[in-house]
Amino acid sequence: MGAAAADVPSQKAFGWAARDSSGILSPFHFSRRATGEQDVTFKVLYCGICHSDLHFIKNEWGNAYYPCIPGHEIIGVVTEVGSKVQSFKVGDKIGVGCIVDSCRCCDSCAEDLENYCPKTIFNYLSTYPDGTPAYGGYSDIMVIDQRYGIRIPENMSLDAIALLLCAGITVYSPLKYYGLDKPGLHIGVVGLGGLGHMAVKFAKAFGAKVTVISTSPNKKEEAITRLGADSFLVSRHTQQLQAAVGTMDGIIDTVSAIHALLPLINLLKTHGKLVMVGAPDKPLELPISPLLFGRKIVGGSGIGGIKETQEMVDFAAKHGIKADIEVIPMDYVNTAMDRLLKVDVKYRFVIDIANTLKAA
Amino acid sequence: MGAAAADVPSQKAFGWAARDSSGILSPFHFSRRATGEQDVTFKVLYCGICHSDLHFIKNEWGNAYYPCIPGHEIIGVVTEVGSKVQSFKVGDKIGVGCIVDSCRCCDSCAEDLENYCPKTIFNYLSTYPDGTPAYGGYSDIMVIDQRYGIRIPENMSLDAIALLLCAGITVYSPLKYYGLDKPGLHIGVVGLGGLGHMAVKFAKAFGAKVTVISTSPNKKEEAITRLGADSFLVSRHTQQLQAAVGTMDGIIDTVSAIHALLPLINLLKTHGKLVMVGAPDKPLELPISPLLFGRKIVGGSGIGGIKETQEMVDFAAKHGIKADIEVIPMDYVNTAMDRLLKVDVKYRFVIDIANTLKAA
Repeated sequence: MGAAAADVPSQKAFGWAARDSSGILSPFHFSRRATGEQDVTFKVLYCGICHSDLHFIKNEWGNAYYPCIPGHEIIGVVTEVGSKVQSFKVGDKIGVGCIVDSCRCCDSCAEDLENYCPKTIFNYLSTYPDGTPAYGGYSDIMVIDQRYGIRIPENMSLDAIALLLCAGITVYSPLKYYGLDKPGLHIGVVGLGGLGHMAVKFAKAFGAKVTVISTSPNKKEEAITRLGADSFLVSRHTQQLQAAVGTMDGIIDTVSAIHALLPLINLLKTHGKLVMVGAPDKPLELPISPLLFGRKIVGGSGIGGIKETQEMVDFAAKHGIKADIEVIPMDYVNTAMDRLLKVDVKYRFVIDIANTLKAA
Repeated sequence: MGAAAADVPSQKAFGWAARDSSGILSPFHFSRRATGEQDVTFKVLYCGICHSDLHFIKNEWGNAYYPCIPGHEIIGVVTEVGSKVQSFKVGDKIGVGCIVDSCRCCDSCAEDLENYCPKTIFNYLSTYPDGTPAYGGYSDIMVIDQRYGIRIPENMSLDAIALLLCAGITVYSPLKYYGLDKPGLHIGVVGLGGLGHMAVKFAKAFGAKVTVISTSPNKKEEAITRLGADSFLVSRHTQQLQAAVGTMDGIIDTVSAIHALLPLINLLKTHGKLVMVGAPDKPLELPISPLLFGRKIVGGSGIGGIKETQEMVDFAAKHGIKADIEVIPMDYVNTAMDRLLKVDVKYRFVIDIANTLKAA
């Protein structure tokens, strides 16, 4: 049994957990808190596999706990609501992303930016103040304060929108914050994985001209034909880059590997913005003069707040935006993790929890 | 004689020029264009010595030409105006900074951001399209299109405001552009030289709480007592920095030497802005995660456009902002350059051109 204060009412739950830094997942019985008056309990339907899941369970960030149930791109159906819950009723579809609680009283929380609250409880990365781990979405049920649930509009493909809750908001939020959501802009997207392919779709929906910048020439056709990008640059092809110098209003850089920033900064117009959403584990080299001469910025952005996540989901519903995914059964998850490591997926795995998670 | 197209009407001029990369300046006779219909000719009264002057004449940027007359912080008095000049009349005080011409038709010029025009003629860094070098302000007279002249309000100390035209606008423009001009903000200023001391004064005038961050503990009293900063951090004093983590809305970083960005990024609040105005000649290390977790940015800014420079001078006049300077005679300039190299000046030298430049 996972940790849970003995005197707190709880409900039985079941999922797949990593027990050590091998990262191998296996069936795990635990408990979640009972449905409190502000709480929503829901049956998990789908859960995306984010690369963060792999980083965390292998303790690559040094902050893992075990057993750990990952998963923060979750779609479910509400099965019980607390007495004071008004946002959801039984039978509603609900989404939960990276944030399951926050301090609710800091400036960030007051501004609906719980993602920047210093006390945010991140789905599976954190423990609640009472010591209970925030077990993630590779599990049969979840319990969440209504404040942190996302309402899912009717008629969305539930499997294909799970990863809006992390990958989607991670690229939507900076497009909005950095003013890169205006029609007619030229937006670059660096890296064509889970984040990158969502960035292409949102930027197109905002009315941008979108150029994908990738190390893999063989992604060109896919970027243009399948995802609707307008053009494609191979990042190691100096001539291609040279021809595009000074043409972009903004760039969303999704790459977590060490890479050169200067060629990207050079692609920007004057006052252009290079926004990092991938997190390389070592510092990158930043040449300063090109920032000065073009009043350019390098900025960051991390996921998004609950209000903006709702706005993003509603926007996706309106524009028919969904992720390109491969749906897998629960017991395929360890194989999927291996394939993820080899970047052998277009563009994300989503676990069909409801139909394939079987209690031992 | 310096280069000037033989068939263009010209007027005789005299100044001090470097002849080679020794950077030693000596008297130099040359010519400037005659006063065109849009031109203003003025007698130079004062010219500041910017560190860029030293970099350029020693060819440290690899783009020097010789002979070269430096100087781009210039105050003068108008002696002749062209037939179509309406902005100035004989006897007016005039300021000229880094920009003496631009293409006038690009987006940047249209937005009064001539500083980002790709064809800007920079005072002494550039040559005009006809091949004439843009000789700078260490000279008796200058000729400039009225569009690039700054009107100097009455009752300003002409010697002490010369360096508003470069150092002043270099810090004023980013404080405005990056929204760091609102009362009540907490602004950090890194480095207390020519740029830094102007940044303190402008930030204070905008109503900010100002903290100076410097490698030199002995600048503390000066920063607080003389310049009016509210607090002072020694950049190598880990404990002092730790106590200030997450407290600043923005930082103006004036340092051109290689230095660590992470401690500065850590000083910023969520959504804080680190703005570089110094130009280290090698890339700096940029850790990405701290940008993501706090939606922080590292931006750049280079001088400012003519309209904003006028606004800045008018703001300085209203708020009594002037630089702290040491006025020197023309023939002291080589000694001053040596002292500048040793950072032995508070905070800038200004050459009293009108009273001390004597034609050979």
